[in-house]
Amino acid sequence: MVGKLYGIGVGPGDPELITLKAVKILENIEVVCVPQAKKGKPSLALNIAAKYLPEQVNVLELVLPMTEEKNELESSWQEAGAQILTYLEKGMDVAFLTLGDPSLYSTFSYVSRVVKSLAPQVEVEVIPGITSYSLAAAKTGVSLAEKDESLLIVPVGSQEELLDGLERKHNVVLMKVSRDFDFILEALEKSNRLENSYFVSRCGQEKEYITKDIKKLKGLKIDYMSLILSKREEKGETK
Amino acid sequence: MVGKLYGIGVGPGDPELITLKAVKILENIEVVCVPQAKKGKPSLALNIAAKYLPEQVNVLELVLPMTEEKNELESSWQEAGAQILTYLEKGMDVAFLTLGDPSLYSTFSYVSRVVKSLAPQVEVEVIPGITSYSLAAAKTGVSLAEKDESLLIVPVGSQEELLDGLERKHNVVLMKVSRDFDFILEALEKSNRLENSYFVSRCGQEKEYITKDIKKLKGLKIDYMSLILSKREEKGETK
Repeated sequence: MVGKLYGIGVGPGDPELITLKAVKILENIEVVCVPQAKKGKPSLALNIAAKYLPEQVNVLELVLPMTEEKNELESSWQEAGAQILTYLEKGMDVAFLTLGDPSLYSTFSYVSRVVKSLAPQVEVEVIPGITSYSLAAAKTGVSLAEKDESLLIVPVGSQEELLDGLERKHNVVLMKVSRDFDFILEALEKSNRLENSYFVSRCGQEKEYITKDIKKLKGLKIDYMSLILSKREEKGETK
Repeated sequence: MVGKLYGIGVGPGDPELITLKAVKILENIEVVCVPQAKKGKPSLALNIAAKYLPEQVNVLELVLPMTEEKNELESSWQEAGAQILTYLEKGMDVAFLTLGDPSLYSTFSYVSRVVKSLAPQVEVEVIPGITSYSLAAAKTGVSLAEKDESLLIVPVGSQEELLDGLERKHNVVLMKVSRDFDFILEALEKSNRLENSYFVSRCGQEKEYITKDIKKLKGLKIDYMSLILSKREEKGETK
């Protein structure tokens, strides 16, 4: 019988913010795979999972380069899917580890789709994880949304949607802000949001950094794992 | 010394989707409080937490009516905050339980604010939880967002933002859809989203119900704990 594929969210980085369900699966898993930007790079997701894994677990390093080049991406997913499938076809269960939640900006979406297209009979189960922005809200004491407020989660790649989102009344989480930080700074300023925004980097991890003084980061190198929480203006406070 | 106030997310309903961190705190807590719509109503959040709580724990039932009436709400929060404070002032730690995540549409936001205003020296810590929509995405196999996609989480109370959100290219999570289901059905149809939407009720709970055939729910009584995941159209598929 073919093995089962799990997409496991290990949470934002704090090793205690993993779910009991994830731990239970990891304790009995035969193959664990870890997406890597480069071969041999230490993996935070694997670090979090390590103490639950059985001794004889197979660790499969999947090299998934961070690139915008579509063909390169596509072929890295195909390759990863095929590698995973060789284990599944031996009847072994495979856990694909994801920082945060496998349903949100995770390569698991693409890779599991490849596996399903190669072998539709494979069962896939996703175990949700705590997102970086949930922990950022917890740490700053800022709620993500209350009452009739809405929350927009937007990656910086899409400038148009970002500008549009900031103009609206949503609370906003800007993801992957290192990609174009100066643009974001300007956009926050223009939309009068600098006062009600927090910059949060490596939340729950060793090098966690949180500040409300976002302006002072101008021109600095921004860590890849950074986001900004921006609350909409209080009703009636302005306008 | 005054006790510490925890806001603890116990996850969406599946008892295994609680974090290790939440469990660790619950195992040593002195007072647990549970928001209730009516006195004596069974609490799902308490059920999930129950097996971790110490035997001698104090259970504080907070009656927080589901009403739109502002003064009634405000006074119920004030009352809840004051009750919590009596325990904190005795030096006891208090855990406020929340289904899902305490930072998202939770009464914890209001009640903790009351406690802080009455006693600014109280330390508050939020332990994030898995949200219902993360689990809904996991169960349906639909990703919440990929690549440059954005995700809008919008409660049904705000019709204008809802309509506007559906018109845009975001993926959308509609929360609290029981409040105005026929309106939502119409809005999904108008924005050509019915095909790419899932209705998910009591996700991770005993009475979980998931369907893509949302139209057939027209006119039926919709469970309070229901949401809709709506993916934006695939690029290039339309227009």
